[in-house]
Amino acid sequence: MEGLRGPFDYSEEPPRHPCLRINAKEPFNAEPPRATLISSYVTPVDFFLKRNHGPIPVVDDINSYYVSIGGLVEKPMQMSLADIKKLPKYDVTATLQCAGNRRTAMSKTRTVRGVGWDVCALGNAIWGGAKLSDVLELVGVLKHTAITSLGGKHVEFISVDKCPEENGGPYKASIPLVQATNPAADVLLAYEMNGEVLERDHGYPLRVIVPGVIGARSVKWLDRINIIEEECQGFFMQKDYKMFPPTVDWDNIDWSTRKPQMDFPVQCAICSLEDVDIVKRGEVTLGGYALSGGGRGIERVDISVDGGKTWVEAFRYQKSNVPYISTDISSDKWAWVFFKAVVDIPGDAEIIAKAVDSSANVQPEKVELIWNLRGILNTSWHCVCVQAVP
Amino acid sequence: MEGLRGPFDYSEEPPRHPCLRINAKEPFNAEPPRATLISSYVTPVDFFLKRNHGPIPVVDDINSYYVSIGGLVEKPMQMSLADIKKLPKYDVTATLQCAGNRRTAMSKTRTVRGVGWDVCALGNAIWGGAKLSDVLELVGVLKHTAITSLGGKHVEFISVDKCPEENGGPYKASIPLVQATNPAADVLLAYEMNGEVLERDHGYPLRVIVPGVIGARSVKWLDRINIIEEECQGFFMQKDYKMFPPTVDWDNIDWSTRKPQMDFPVQCAICSLEDVDIVKRGEVTLGGYALSGGGRGIERVDISVDGGKTWVEAFRYQKSNVPYISTDISSDKWAWVFFKAVVDIPGDAEIIAKAVDSSANVQPEKVELIWNLRGILNTSWHCVCVQAVP
Repeated sequence: MEGLRGPFDYSEEPPRHPCLRINAKEPFNAEPPRATLISSYVTPVDFFLKRNHGPIPVVDDINSYYVSIGGLVEKPMQMSLADIKKLPKYDVTATLQCAGNRRTAMSKTRTVRGVGWDVCALGNAIWGGAKLSDVLELVGVLKHTAITSLGGKHVEFISVDKCPEENGGPYKASIPLVQATNPAADVLLAYEMNGEVLERDHGYPLRVIVPGVIGARSVKWLDRINIIEEECQGFFMQKDYKMFPPTVDWDNIDWSTRKPQMDFPVQCAICSLEDVDIVKRGEVTLGGYALSGGGRGIERVDISVDGGKTWVEAFRYQKSNVPYISTDISSDKWAWVFFKAVVDIPGDAEIIAKAVDSSANVQPEKVELIWNLRGILNTSWHCVCVQAVP
Repeated sequence: MEGLRGPFDYSEEPPRHPCLRINAKEPFNAEPPRATLISSYVTPVDFFLKRNHGPIPVVDDINSYYVSIGGLVEKPMQMSLADIKKLPKYDVTATLQCAGNRRTAMSKTRTVRGVGWDVCALGNAIWGGAKLSDVLELVGVLKHTAITSLGGKHVEFISVDKCPEENGGPYKASIPLVQATNPAADVLLAYEMNGEVLERDHGYPLRVIVPGVIGARSVKWLDRINIIEEECQGFFMQKDYKMFPPTVDWDNIDWSTRKPQMDFPVQCAICSLEDVDIVKRGEVTLGGYALSGGGRGIERVDISVDGGKTWVEAFRYQKSNVPYISTDISSDKWAWVFFKAVVDIPGDAEIIAKAVDSSANVQPEKVELIWNLRGILNTSWHCVCVQAVP
C-alpha cells in the first residue's frame, strides 16, 4: 500500500475539538461532554467518540490508495477509492458504541483494565458508502452466502495502523460472511460521515461500518479484506472484547473459552446531568440515549427519581419530537433513541434510567453481576445523584 | 374450506398423554412435568406443550383441504397439502415457547390474568415443511421483499379454530413480510413434527412455525395467508401478548401504546428439581434449559446454590454431551440449550439459575420489575428451594 501509511509515532495526529474529554492521549481516546452528546441526534464529527489503538494513519497519495480483497475467493482484486465510489451509494444512520462505554463506573466496584470511559463512548452518524455485499459480489461471492466454494466463512478487515497489542501490526477484526453478504445487514465500506469526506480520526479514506455490533468490529483505515475460514485471530478478536463472568480474573483467564463479542445488550444513560450535579428543586427535564444491538429497537425507557421505588416512562424520539416506534419503517433501525422526561425533584435524589428493548430484554440492576475483567458492556441501570437546592 | 373444520364444542378433542399437567381443560392447555421436559433434547410429541384457544379443529377430508394465499399480491392462489409438499422440504429444529411460560411464578407477586404455567410451557421439535419464502414466491412475492408493489408489509396467518376472544372467529397473527420472505429466517409451513405427520393438537394438517419468536405467532390449522398493509388486527396481536410496564393495570391500560411482542428475551429454568424438593445432602446434578429469541445463542448459564452469593458456570449442550458453541454451524440456532452442573448441597438451599445470551443480555433478578398484567415473559432468575436431608 503506497497511498496510506500507519505512522510509528504521534507526531502526525490531526487536530481535535478542545471540548472533548480526553481519556488517553497516545493513542488518542476521547468522548464528548454528556450534554454535548445529546444536543443532536446525528452527532457532529467533532464531537463523535475518538477511539484509537495507535497513531492515526496518513494518506500520502489518495490516487495510489486501494483496498485489496482476497483470501478464499475465486477472483481476488484491488479496488481504488474511485472503484468503490462507482458502486451504488448508501447512507446508513448507525450508532457506534465502544464496548468499553461506561467502564469507569464498572471499575468503581472492582478495578478493570482498559481506557476509562464515562457514558459518552458512542456516537450516531450518517455513514455514506458502498455495501460490502455489493463489493463481495465483484470477487465472486454472491449475496446471502454463508460459505464460499473455497470454504470461506468469515470476512476479515485489516487496517494500516500500528498497534502495540499487535506488536506493531495493524488492527484487525472479522464478521461472519453471512452477515457481510446480507444487504439488509447494511455493512458498509464507508467514505463519508454526515455527508462529508471521512476525517482521519474516523478512518479516512475508507472504513468498515458494522451496524448493531460493538464498535471494535468497524475497522478504520482499511488496507485489506480477506475471506477466511475461521474468525480473525487478531488480538482484539481473541484476547480482548470477550464477555467473561465475574469469577474470571487475570490470574485464571482462558481466552479460548469465549467467543468474540459482536452484538450488544440493551443500554441507556442520562446525559442531561453529570454524575453529581446540583439542580433547582422542582421540575427538571431529563434527557439521554438508549440503544440495543442487532437492530433491536427500544420499547421503553423507565425513569425513577426515588432510587427505584417508583418509575415513570420517558418520551422516546429520534427525529426531533416525532414519537419513536421501534419497528416502524420511519425509524432508524441501527441508531440510538433519545429520551426525555419531565420529573419533579423535591430534594436530593438518586435518579435512575433503565431501558427495555423490542425483545423485552432489560438492563441489569447491579453492575457487580456483569462485572468483567476487561470492563466491557456495562449496561447496568444508570444512576445519577443530584443535590436539589431551593 | 371444506376439508378442515373448527368445532363449536369440545366433543371431538384428541387423546392426550396422562402424565401432562393440565392447566386448563377447555380449551386444553397442558405442560409436561419438569423432569420429563429435559429427558430429551427433541421433545416427544406427547410431551410437547399443548396450547389452545378453542376446540381442536377436525380434518374431515384431507383431499379437499387447501390454504388460500391472497391479500395484496398479484397472483392469489389456493394450495392443497400436495402442492405444499411439492416444494423443497426443510427440517428446522426450533423451540416454541409460550409467552406465558412461568406465569404462575409471576402471579405470586401480584395476580395476573391468563393460564397458569409452571416452567414447561415450551418444547423443541424438528419441524418439517416448506419455507414460507418459497410459497410466497408462487404468488409473486420475491425473496427479501419488505413491501409488495400493492403495499403489503405484513403476512397474516388465519386458523379455522373458534376462539371466544375473537367472538367465535379464528385465531390469527402476523409477522413482517421481510421476515417471511427471508429464507434464513426459516419460517415454515410445517406438515411434520419429529418426522411424523403433525398431530391434531399441533396443527394438523398445516401450521406456521416462526422460529425465534413467541409461540403465539406460530398459527396452527392454517386456513388463509393474507399479505396485508398493517399488522394483523386480531385480538391476540392487539389486545394480548404485549409487554406493559408494572405501572399499567386493567384500570389504566391503553393497548394501542405497545407493539405486539414478537422476539423474546433470554430465559432459563432448572427442571431437575420441583419448586420445593427434598434432596440428599452432598453432590446433586442440576439440569435445565436456556434459550433466547431472535436466533441468539446462549453464552453462559450461571448456577448459585447459596441464594446468589457465589456462582458456578454450567455445562451447555444440545446433542448429548457435545459442548455447545453458540455461533457454530453445528448448533441449532433456533433451539434451546440444555445445561448441567454438579453442585454440592450441604443443607437447605436456594438454588438459582440465570443465563446470558450471545448479545450479553442477562435475565432480571426480580420478577417485580418485569411484572405485567398479562403475565408474559417472566424471565426473572429461576429459583428452586430444596430441603437437604442426610
